[in-house]
Amino acid sequence: MKKEISSGTLSEKLFEQVYDYVLERIRRGEWKADEKLPSVRQLAVELNVHRLTVFKAYQLLKQNQHVYVKDKSGYYVQSSSMLQVARQDDPIVSAYVHKSHLSEIHQVQAAYQFSIALLDPNLLPNLYFSEYVKKVFDLYPKVLGTYSTTQGDLELREALCHYFTKHYRFFLSPSELLITSGSQEAIDLIARVLIKNRDVVLLERPTYSPAIDVFRRQGATTISVEIHPYGYDLEEVERLMQQHKPRLFYLNPTFHNPTGYVVPAKQRKRLVELAEKYHCLLVEDDPCRDIYFEEEPPLPLFSYDTAGYVIYIRSFSKYIAPGLSIATVACRPACMNYLLKAKSLADSGSPLLNQKIFLHYFFSERMQQHLAKLRTALAMRKELMEAELSGTGWEWYSPTGGFNLWIKLPVSTPMDTLLSKSIEQSITFVPGSICDPVRELTTWIRMSYSFLNDQQMREGLKRFIQVTKEIVPHDKCGSA
Amino acid sequence: MKKEISSGTLSEKLFEQVYDYVLERIRRGEWKADEKLPSVRQLAVELNVHRLTVFKAYQLLKQNQHVYVKDKSGYYVQSSSMLQVARQDDPIVSAYVHKSHLSEIHQVQAAYQFSIALLDPNLLPNLYFSEYVKKVFDLYPKVLGTYSTTQGDLELREALCHYFTKHYRFFLSPSELLITSGSQEAIDLIARVLIKNRDVVLLERPTYSPAIDVFRRQGATTISVEIHPYGYDLEEVERLMQQHKPRLFYLNPTFHNPTGYVVPAKQRKRLVELAEKYHCLLVEDDPCRDIYFEEEPPLPLFSYDTAGYVIYIRSFSKYIAPGLSIATVACRPACMNYLLKAKSLADSGSPLLNQKIFLHYFFSERMQQHLAKLRTALAMRKELMEAELSGTGWEWYSPTGGFNLWIKLPVSTPMDTLLSKSIEQSITFVPGSICDPVRELTTWIRMSYSFLNDQQMREGLKRFIQVTKEIVPHDKCGSA
Repeated sequence: MKKEISSGTLSEKLFEQVYDYVLERIRRGEWKADEKLPSVRQLAVELNVHRLTVFKAYQLLKQNQHVYVKDKSGYYVQSSSMLQVARQDDPIVSAYVHKSHLSEIHQVQAAYQFSIALLDPNLLPNLYFSEYVKKVFDLYPKVLGTYSTTQGDLELREALCHYFTKHYRFFLSPSELLITSGSQEAIDLIARVLIKNRDVVLLERPTYSPAIDVFRRQGATTISVEIHPYGYDLEEVERLMQQHKPRLFYLNPTFHNPTGYVVPAKQRKRLVELAEKYHCLLVEDDPCRDIYFEEEPPLPLFSYDTAGYVIYIRSFSKYIAPGLSIATVACRPACMNYLLKAKSLADSGSPLLNQKIFLHYFFSERMQQHLAKLRTALAMRKELMEAELSGTGWEWYSPTGGFNLWIKLPVSTPMDTLLSKSIEQSITFVPGSICDPVRELTTWIRMSYSFLNDQQMREGLKRFIQVTKEIVPHDKCGSA
Repeated sequence: MKKEISSGTLSEKLFEQVYDYVLERIRRGEWKADEKLPSVRQLAVELNVHRLTVFKAYQLLKQNQHVYVKDKSGYYVQSSSMLQVARQDDPIVSAYVHKSHLSEIHQVQAAYQFSIALLDPNLLPNLYFSEYVKKVFDLYPKVLGTYSTTQGDLELREALCHYFTKHYRFFLSPSELLITSGSQEAIDLIARVLIKNRDVVLLERPTYSPAIDVFRRQGATTISVEIHPYGYDLEEVERLMQQHKPRLFYLNPTFHNPTGYVVPAKQRKRLVELAEKYHCLLVEDDPCRDIYFEEEPPLPLFSYDTAGYVIYIRSFSKYIAPGLSIATVACRPACMNYLLKAKSLADSGSPLLNQKIFLHYFFSERMQQHLAKLRTALAMRKELMEAELSGTGWEWYSPTGGFNLWIKLPVSTPMDTLLSKSIEQSITFVPGSICDPVRELTTWIRMSYSFLNDQQMREGLKRFIQVTKEIVPHDKCGSA
């Protein structure tokens, strides 16, 4: 049936069949990590297809990091390939299983966890929390005995609608909001609903590491969009949308993680126009909009969207209550319809208790007053970190909000050594490569100033700088 | 490349490619609901394959309910096919999206919800709950400010290990337990980790409806195993394992949902032997083991497992705290390794607050005393329901635990009419067909006696019996 296939009667192009064929053999462990694949010529003969077809498949495999090229000598199976190969003694032959690179770093026990972009629990009004919890039990004595609806507590969705409309001019009804267990679940549900094998997804470079993992697990072909202090190169974005017809662009335009950049309002407006023009959904992740040090950031992209091309993810976990895991997704009915079905099979609704506590805590006057204090406290911690690093000659962008510094170390820094030596010193940080869809940016790191107190930060940074001095030749210690 | 494909060089058999081809065209909306598919002969010509190949593909499509056969005249696209077709005005072209049949019924607002297999919140010691919650905040003042690990709170996992070992002779370490947000998330994670397109999954018939939806969404080919008051036909189970090499068997052997049957200890032991022999994992869902009316049920299958072929899902939501959504999965490291990765991308860990509250509530003396009261209360509600139905001549098995009656109505009952008329009367129940992997069992229904109080049950059942009398010819009102 060669004719039919190559002429596209079957729903896949020939090179895509070859792509899947190679992936399948890697997944089955027939071709192991760092093993050399058949040459383009060999495989072309074996499958009775044209060499260019195999070449095209290999290129896509390389782009999606399932194979790598070694000094022109051929293609090899990527050992870090996210295809998990079942061992012989393992009763399981797994479907695609992907690891979360970031969560592996978070599992490291360390005294100085600069890798954690979360609020220091001591900055939260913990003593007041329990009052609100008691209030919740007085108001809803049966809250623990009651399931939430799949979409989430109506009272909470109504309050969020009112809040979003008042602050960001969203035109929204409660039926256009879904409550999720944190933004991680939101990203996962969106990927499951929208992404099929080989769909193209645009990702910022760098970006939020677990998002890379989620979209890759869905089989997406990811294409990077560089993010700069001034935003994106919109002509490039348009070219990519035109050429690759991406299903979606996952972006984090406000106090971007890891860089701290803020995409200006003008670009936001234009992005929404491009999304509509090229039918590319914009998945806007907005976890720390409230953490600004100077003026309020520009309105979310969602505020400019009239045609339903923006899906807005708003998490509150990072700075309000990580222990509650509450986030919300705003999108139009066509998309919500799908998300609800996925959510009902994923966990049939987030726990009602958490939603009720959040409702009474977040919208309380005390919380809103507390946010102001929080901004000051974090701004001071940022300045402290910058002061401690001032002598190093390293480069970073000084963010006006958020939780992180994105730091460029000397080009000669051996990152793996730095990470292991730091962990020995009970220090963790996020290597830039795991925030990079193409896993480069090997001289960059993300250091969070949100989780450690002043003293821990001073001590941890002194140690860290010492570690780098020991492994980086002194004369090169200035940034290249 | 026909030779290569049919000789299996490519990773799929030819009929499977045809299967995927047809699915893809349905998904893309080229073939719409209730539209007639090309005849076997036509498609064979179009794809230049043998008619038997197309026939085989159509048979599998029929088995998986993507197509149906109409009076021998041909194959038609199943409108209830779980492939969602994107509309033209819809910016989304979705990946597989499946609906949860059960959650749709739960969305119906009704005064007499016999469809809900949950505990009546009034049977929970709600007034005591808040004390435990306050205790949690005294013990862990920063609980809301703290993320849980992906695997779940260690203190809780240690307590559960101790509990499982003491009560069920599990040999288990905390590293072999995962805390999930309810059993729905557990089933979803297991399906995502273990099931690839066209993998064979054994399901009880009838079974827990959302499990059918989850495994189908993963693309599983499901095969039914009839469950009887005495358990399964184990020779049939062995034959199926031998012939179809299923990846897993999802089962609910203790106070089975919906029938209430209990699989005897002897069969449990044998099932574990078969699982090991045929490398078929047993996914044991055990949500209401504590709700027994006479003696304690036999030990879980997991107790008999030495080779790591049983994955044990234990939910506590149904009868302890639906508002907390806490469940746990016990399995061996090979499998846990995969589940942890999936969980870290799904929601990076269940909320810590819920885990801590559950820990102090479930293991409290008061809760354990309360369980005894609960068993009595539910046994009485069951007897009440049976008394109300005694005059109808309908058939059911009288369960010794759990939440449901599985009732056989007169064969002449028009189920769709019954459901719509009942909803008009503000009554909901679960039609047997949605608990059936092959969507038959059209004269059976599931009625739960756990959610409504005595008076609601009496009134609701009187109304319901009246509705059936009106639509079922009187002389046939006895069960056929």
